[in-house]
Amino acid sequence: MVVIGKEKISKARPYKKTSKKDDSPNTVIQAGSAVIGGGGLTIIAGPCSIESREQILAIAREVKAAGATMLRGGAFKPRTSPYSFQGLGYEGLKLLLEAKKETGLPVITEIVSLSHLDLFEEVDVIQVGARNMQNFELLRELGQIKKPILLKRGLASTLEELLLSAEYLLSGGNQEVILCERGIRTFERHTKNTLDISAVPLLKELSHLPVIVDPSHATGIASLVHPLSLSAVASGADGIMVEVHNDPKNALCDGPQSITPLEFRLLAKEAILIQKTLKDSRAAL
Amino acid sequence: MVVIGKEKISKARPYKKTSKKDDSPNTVIQAGSAVIGGGGLTIIAGPCSIESREQILAIAREVKAAGATMLRGGAFKPRTSPYSFQGLGYEGLKLLLEAKKETGLPVITEIVSLSHLDLFEEVDVIQVGARNMQNFELLRELGQIKKPILLKRGLASTLEELLLSAEYLLSGGNQEVILCERGIRTFERHTKNTLDISAVPLLKELSHLPVIVDPSHATGIASLVHPLSLSAVASGADGIMVEVHNDPKNALCDGPQSITPLEFRLLAKEAILIQKTLKDSRAAL
Amino acid sequence: MVVIGKEKISKARPYKKTSKKDDSPNTVIQAGSAVIGGGGLTIIAGPCSIESREQILAIAREVKAAGATMLRGGAFKPRTSPYSFQGLGYEGLKLLLEAKKETGLPVITEIVSLSHLDLFEEVDVIQVGARNMQNFELLRELGQIKKPILLKRGLASTLEELLLSAEYLLSGGNQEVILCERGIRTFERHTKNTLDISAVPLLKELSHLPVIVDPSHATGIASLVHPLSLSAVASGADGIMVEVHNDPKNALCDGPQSITPLEFRLLAKEAILIQKTLKDSRAAL
Amino acid sequence: MVVIGKEKISKARPYKKTSKKDDSPNTVIQAGSAVIGGGGLTIIAGPCSIESREQILAIAREVKAAGATMLRGGAFKPRTSPYSFQGLGYEGLKLLLEAKKETGLPVITEIVSLSHLDLFEEVDVIQVGARNMQNFELLRELGQIKKPILLKRGLASTLEELLLSAEYLLSGGNQEVILCERGIRTFERHTKNTLDISAVPLLKELSHLPVIVDPSHATGIASLVHPLSLSAVASGADGIMVEVHNDPKNALCDGPQSITPLEFRLLAKEAILIQKTLKDSRAAL
Repeated sequence: MVVIGKEKISKARPYKKTSKKDDSPNTVIQAGSAVIGGGGLTIIAGPCSIESREQILAIAREVKAAGATMLRGGAFKPRTSPYSFQGLGYEGLKLLLEAKKETGLPVITEIVSLSHLDLFEEVDVIQVGARNMQNFELLRELGQIKKPILLKRGLASTLEELLLSAEYLLSGGNQEVILCERGIRTFERHTKNTLDISAVPLLKELSHLPVIVDPSHATGIASLVHPLSLSAVASGADGIMVEVHNDPKNALCDGPQSITPLEFRLLAKEAILIQKTLKDSRAAL
Repeated sequence: MVVIGKEKISKARPYKKTSKKDDSPNTVIQAGSAVIGGGGLTIIAGPCSIESREQILAIAREVKAAGATMLRGGAFKPRTSPYSFQGLGYEGLKLLLEAKKETGLPVITEIVSLSHLDLFEEVDVIQVGARNMQNFELLRELGQIKKPILLKRGLASTLEELLLSAEYLLSGGNQEVILCERGIRTFERHTKNTLDISAVPLLKELSHLPVIVDPSHATGIASLVHPLSLSAVASGADGIMVEVHNDPKNALCDGPQSITPLEFRLLAKEAILIQKTLKDSRAAL
Repeated sequence: MVVIGKEKISKARPYKKTSKKDDSPNTVIQAGSAVIGGGGLTIIAGPCSIESREQILAIAREVKAAGATMLRGGAFKPRTSPYSFQGLGYEGLKLLLEAKKETGLPVITEIVSLSHLDLFEEVDVIQVGARNMQNFELLRELGQIKKPILLKRGLASTLEELLLSAEYLLSGGNQEVILCERGIRTFERHTKNTLDISAVPLLKELSHLPVIVDPSHATGIASLVHPLSLSAVASGADGIMVEVHNDPKNALCDGPQSITPLEFRLLAKEAILIQKTLKDSRAAL
Repeated sequence: MVVIGKEKISKARPYKKTSKKDDSPNTVIQAGSAVIGGGGLTIIAGPCSIESREQILAIAREVKAAGATMLRGGAFKPRTSPYSFQGLGYEGLKLLLEAKKETGLPVITEIVSLSHLDLFEEVDVIQVGARNMQNFELLRELGQIKKPILLKRGLASTLEELLLSAEYLLSGGNQEVILCERGIRTFERHTKNTLDISAVPLLKELSHLPVIVDPSHATGIASLVHPLSLSAVASGADGIMVEVHNDPKNALCDGPQSITPLEFRLLAKEAILIQKTLKDSRAAL
C-alpha cells in the first residue's frame, strides 16, 4: 500500500536551501516600500494586462487608496493561442513604471524571455508564471540576479516540484523568492482551476519562504475572489495578489475574474481585519 | 473552444429544488440543540470511530467544553479494505447515544446500509459518506424520511453531481440537507486529498442549502486542520466538522489526521472569532 | 521524495486473494456459453439501456451475427439526476432474458440494489457499476453468491482500491470476478473520461482475474470506440464491452457513444484479428 | 449542465493551421531516412541520456538491428531538481551525431534553450519536452526554422492546448510538426503518469499532423512498455518512441522505465506485425 503523508515526506527533502530549518528565521523580503513575509500582509493588486496609460494610472491610484501595497500589471503575456492579445510589451512596462513613479507603489510583472531581462531593472519583483515554473534555463539565470522573484506554481506541479524550482533560484544565489499558489488543474469544471488552499500552511511548514495566494487565476470567477482572499489570509498566507480592473467587461484579458476597485476596497479591508484578528489572538496566548 | 465559467453554468440548473432562488431564504436546519445555516457557526467534533465507552464519553465532554455544537463518531465504517477495522456497529451507535444523553450534544453518524435505518432513530443528523454520494438507492430512501442528512461530496464528484445527489433527497421530500466539502482527489501527493475551498462560496451561490467543511479528511494531516478550519469559516462556510481524538497515536482509525482536545479548543476559539469579525464587518456596511 | 513505482507497490499487497501468485493459474470464468479469461477474447455488446422488445431483440441478433460472445443491456440504470430516464427496471430485465433465450447469448446487466438480487437469477454475469465500486454492503452480499461479477473501476479509484473491492468479493467466497477498466476522471475535457490503458497490463501483472475494457464509457465519443477497442486487445485485455445501438441518434441513453451494428461488425473482426496475430506471434517464440 | 463532446468542440477550432481540413492530405515528414506519417510506422529508440561513447554506439547498433528507424538520446536534460544529472550537454550531442554517422539512423534530441539552437544543425528532429510545451518564446523561434519538431504534450495540457502550441510553430512557418502523447498527470499512483491513449485517435481526427506515443515516460514502468507500444499502434499512432538501455539497472536516468535491446527486438517485431495486420485488413475493405 502506498503510504502518503507528512511523516513520509519529511524524511528526505531534496530542496535543501528552500527547506525550513528549525533554528533559522523565515525569509523576509523588502521590495521598494513593500515587505513580504515577516508577519505583515502583502496586498498586490492591478490589472491582468496593462492596456493604456489611463487604465494603469487610474487603477494604480484606486488600489493604492484601497490598501494595496504593491501594483501588478502584465506587459509581456504568455498566451495559450498565438492569436490572442500578447500584451503591450516594452511599452506596457514603461507605463507600469510610470504608475510606480506616480503612486510610489512597488511593481511586479511577468518575465517570459531571458532576452528581456535588461528591461526589468526598475521592476521591484519579477514574476515567473505558472507555465514557466519548470523553465529551468530561465530559473538558472534568475538565480544569478539580485531581485526578488515571485514563483508561481505550475498548473499540475506538486508542492515538491514547486520547491525544487525555487531551489534552482536559491542554489544559484538568489535568496529572495516568494512562492505563489494560484490554483491547480483538476476534474472540476465550474472553476477554471482549483485553489489548493492546503498548499499555504503546508508550504509554510516545509519552507522558510513567504507564500502568496492568487485567488483570481485560481477560479476565474470574480465573485469568488473576495471569499477566497479571506480564506487565504485565514490559512496563514503572507499576502494575496488580486486582479482589479476599472472596467472588467471591456478588459482585454481575464475580465470575468477581475473585480472592481470598489469591490477591492472591501476585500482589502476585511483581509487586513482577519489578519489583525489572528495576530491579536496569537499574541494573547 | 470549451467555454467554462459561471455564466455558462447558471443558464441551466438541472437541480431545481436544490438551486438557490432569488426570492427565497436559505435553508436553516434544527438538529437537537444545534442550528445549521442561518448565520451561526456549526462546530461538529469527535472521533473518526467510536472505540469504547470511555473514549467517546471523554471526547464528548472535552469537545463540548471547547465549544462544539454537535458530536460526531463513526459506528458503521465503510473501509477500502475488507480486512480493516469496520467500526463497532450497533454497539458503537449505543455508546454515541449515551454520550448524547450525558452531554446534551446532538449527534451525527454515518449510515452505510438501508437495513440499519431503524437503528438511527435517535441520531440527530445522518451522514451519507463520500463513497455513497451516488448510491441512489440509499438517497431515494433517505429522501422519504424526516431527519437532516449531511451529504458528503464524492472524491471525484463535480459540484453539479453533488447538487444532483442532493436533488434526490429534496425531490423525495426531505428538505433538510447539509452539503459537505471534504477534499477531492487530485495529482498532489503531499495531502490525502485536496480541499476544494472554492466549493464553499460557489455552493452558497448555487444553492440555498447550508455548507459544512471537513478539514480532517480533506488532507489527512493533523497540523493542517487548524488553518484550514479558519480558511473554511473565512470563505463563508456554515460550519466545520473536525476529527478530535484524546489519543491520536493509538486511534483505531485516522489517527494522523486527528487533533487533540487541547488543539481543538484553540481552533474553535479562533473559528468563532473570525466568524464574529466578518459578521460585525458586514453589519457595519 | 515520494518514490512511486512497481517495486515499491509490490512489496505489500493488501488484496491477498485477488493478488497474482507465481505458482497458480489465472482465473477463467464460464458464463453460459462464454469463457472469460484463459486466452480467448470476450466480446460483450449491446445497448446502454433496454428500451423495447424490438430494440433489444434486433440488437441482440445483430451483435451475435457480428461476433459478440455476450449481450449487455441496462434495465436498472443509476443516473446522476433524479429526473433522467432510470431504465425499464424489471420489465427490461425480462426482455433481456427473452433476447438471451432467442439468441443463446449469455447476458450481463447491472445491479443497483440488493433488493433486486432475486430477479437476477437467470442473468449470467452481474455488473457492479463504477458508482457502486465502493458500495461495500453490496459487495459483501455479492461475495456470498455463486455467479460471476463484473466489477467496474470507479471514476476516481486507484487500481489498489479496485483490487481491494474485488477482495471484498473473493474474501466472501465468490471467486468469479471480472475487472473492468472504463475510464477515469481527469482534467482533459474533450473526452468524458480518460481510458487508463496502462491499467490493463498492470492489473494482469497484479492479479489473476480477467480484465475487460469498456471503450464506450471511457470517452463518450462513438468514433473512438473502434481504435480504443483494438488498443485494449493489443494491451492484453481479455475482452471488451461495447455499446451498440441500432439507432444511436434516438437512443434514450448514451447515444453519442454508441456505435451501429455495422460499425461493430468491423470492430469485432479486427479485434479478433489482432488477438490472433499476437497469439500466433507468442506461440512461435 | 456543461455539455462535453465532439460536437461541441468541433464547432470552433482556434488552431486553424493545425486543424484537419476535409480536402487536404495529412502531413508527412521526411527526417533523414525516416518518414513520419503517411501510413508507415516510425520506431524511435534509444537511451534517456547519452552517457558515454560506448553506451550510445552500442545501443544505436542494437536498436537499428532490431528495427528502429530513428535514434533518440538526451544531451541537455531538463531536471526537476538542480542537483540531478543534467546530461552531457554538447559532448553528448557530438556522441549522438557520431552514432548517427555510424548507423545511418536519423537522430532526435531535446532542446532546452534557444542559445543552443546552433548546435542542433545536424540533428534530424528537435524535441520540445513536456515542460516546454508552453514555452512560447521557444516555440516562436522554432517556428522560424526549417527542421522537424517533435512537440510533447505537457503533463497537464489539454489536447486543445497541445494543438495551440503546435499552432505557434505552424503559424510561424514551420509545417513539420510531430505531436507526441507521453502520459498525463492524474490521481493514479501506480504509474508515473497515465497514458491518454484516446488522445491518439482524437488528435488524428482533429489535426493533419502525425502522432507519436512515448510509452516509457507514460508510466515509468519497463514491463508496461511492450503492451502499451502495441496499444499505441493499434489505436492508429504513426509511431512510438521507446527508451532502450543496454544496462537499465545502472542507467544515469530513467532506468526503471528502460527496456533492454532484447526486449525491444520483440516489441518492434510485434508493433510492425500489428501495423501490417491492420493495413491489410483496411486494404481489403
